[in-house]
Amino acid sequence: MTFSLKDRLDASAAATEARLALALADAALPGERLRPERLMAAMRHGALGGGKRLRPFLVIESAALFGIPADQAVTAATAIECIHCYSLVHDDLPAMDDDDLRRGRPTVHRAFDEATAILAGDGLLTLAFDLLAGEDAHPDPAVRIALVRALARASGIGGMVGGQMLDLAAEGRFSGGTPLALAEDAIRDLQAMKTGALLAVSVEAGALLGGATADERAALLAYGRALGAAFQIADDILDVEGTAEEVGKKVGKDAAAGKATLVSRLGLPAARTLLDRLVADASAALAPFGARGAVLAEAALFVANRRN
Amino acid sequence: MTFSLKDRLDASAAATEARLALALADAALPGERLRPERLMAAMRHGALGGGKRLRPFLVIESAALFGIPADQAVTAATAIECIHCYSLVHDDLPAMDDDDLRRGRPTVHRAFDEATAILAGDGLLTLAFDLLAGEDAHPDPAVRIALVRALARASGIGGMVGGQMLDLAAEGRFSGGTPLALAEDAIRDLQAMKTGALLAVSVEAGALLGGATADERAALLAYGRALGAAFQIADDILDVEGTAEEVGKKVGKDAAAGKATLVSRLGLPAARTLLDRLVADASAALAPFGARGAVLAEAALFVANRRN
Repeated sequence: MTFSLKDRLDASAAATEARLALALADAALPGERLRPERLMAAMRHGALGGGKRLRPFLVIESAALFGIPADQAVTAATAIECIHCYSLVHDDLPAMDDDDLRRGRPTVHRAFDEATAILAGDGLLTLAFDLLAGEDAHPDPAVRIALVRALARASGIGGMVGGQMLDLAAEGRFSGGTPLALAEDAIRDLQAMKTGALLAVSVEAGALLGGATADERAALLAYGRALGAAFQIADDILDVEGTAEEVGKKVGKDAAAGKATLVSRLGLPAARTLLDRLVADASAALAPFGARGAVLAEAALFVANRRN
Repeated sequence: MTFSLKDRLDASAAATEARLALALADAALPGERLRPERLMAAMRHGALGGGKRLRPFLVIESAALFGIPADQAVTAATAIECIHCYSLVHDDLPAMDDDDLRRGRPTVHRAFDEATAILAGDGLLTLAFDLLAGEDAHPDPAVRIALVRALARASGIGGMVGGQMLDLAAEGRFSGGTPLALAEDAIRDLQAMKTGALLAVSVEAGALLGGATADERAALLAYGRALGAAFQIADDILDVEGTAEEVGKKVGKDAAAGKATLVSRLGLPAARTLLDRLVADASAALAPFGARGAVLAEAALFVANRRN
């Protein structure tokens, strides 16, 4: 290997952090009247200074397969990170998962208050589409609007938002409190929507930015879906094996809630086997890109073996 | 007058209702995995079967100034209505305005639960941008992406979301509970953001759909801003003078909360005078459109005199 994955992760994280900070500056943009100070502080708390920035990395590295420089992919990457961050802010709310800690810091509603956290999430979600609409996302309006469509589908009703709905239902929230005994397929649907869709659309965005052929786009989507599934299984394994200190949030939550995951359904050894197979599938999907696919293949391994 | 405003309001409301129902159908679209039943039911509860559909009317009638038929403007109109409906669902939440009643029916978190209401709002917000991304919104991607940009700016940090933040702050929510004694300018900022921005972007959307010149777009924006300000003053007057039965939601809330409005700041007679002036300003802004501007001019009168 002639590259360091850590260096590349760090580089895309730094570029994303800078673009996010610019997007969350205090000065109002054309079409805005003013930016309320408390709202901006809450949005910055929820979006800046933390996170692996895995989704931006996937956008930037997928675009790089087509020769697109990082500075031309970072705006779309930042838009997707805004969606990820808003989902964390809303999922952490007392009415949802009721978490006090995120990335080792107080969640937005703990650092501010519930109303502010709801609005900060709404603001980040809206900002994502604002970012995609600007010329710095891509010079061609047709590419920008394709990004809007792909991101809306991945993060809305039939994607991330729907996945969180299924997750709350799985906990038994709407059926008397007893967790649902979901079949393996239903767990896969839930996870593909809740976390997989946004990871998959990240590589799809890279394909759109790079003007990929239909075959290349399909290959990247297959990679993204395998990576997304691997990510969630790794997360479920960490919830069983990790410590709060490592992970930066509460662990053991799934078991405590009696929640159906692929780990609880298949058992730890079978879940590990499945995880290995998904990593292999992800790498295999990258075959059309030859040696250029090495960074994304290494990223799949990283996602499967991460400790936080 | 050779038209009936009521008939035109009814026609755009019916077209919007039909487009919304289609967008909120149970079947998953390409790029979606499945649409969870409870989420769809909550989104339909929050979006269908109620409301004046004033914003869609403004989109459709503004586009009509440029000869655009209603069926070519209804998708963008529906996108803006999705934003309006999501804002109501989130604003009604216990952590925000804590309302039990909306349009004479239980609010979404009362009919379902808080978590579902948060997700239904997130879903509607995301759906708005999905709708704008489709070819039925407009055949030209450049127009569609301009709509995305305008709507994101009007509804985000420096628009509607920011306005709700300022509104909560004005109630004294973050300063010990005593309502802030806002100056007239600060009240105008708050109202222009909280309700004015989305009304103004509705007519701006019509201008974008119609390929308006810069002058025509500026004229429509001036109309939209005057209309938005008039709408909010009429709302504040209704909160003082209306009954819950007429209005379909609690009244007397502003006075009970000691909230600064232009009515409380200026007194009822001066607020009425200002309202009349805004209606005149709105009509005057339509001068470039000659007789074709009559429907929108009549709409400004309607907004000022409405009882619900």
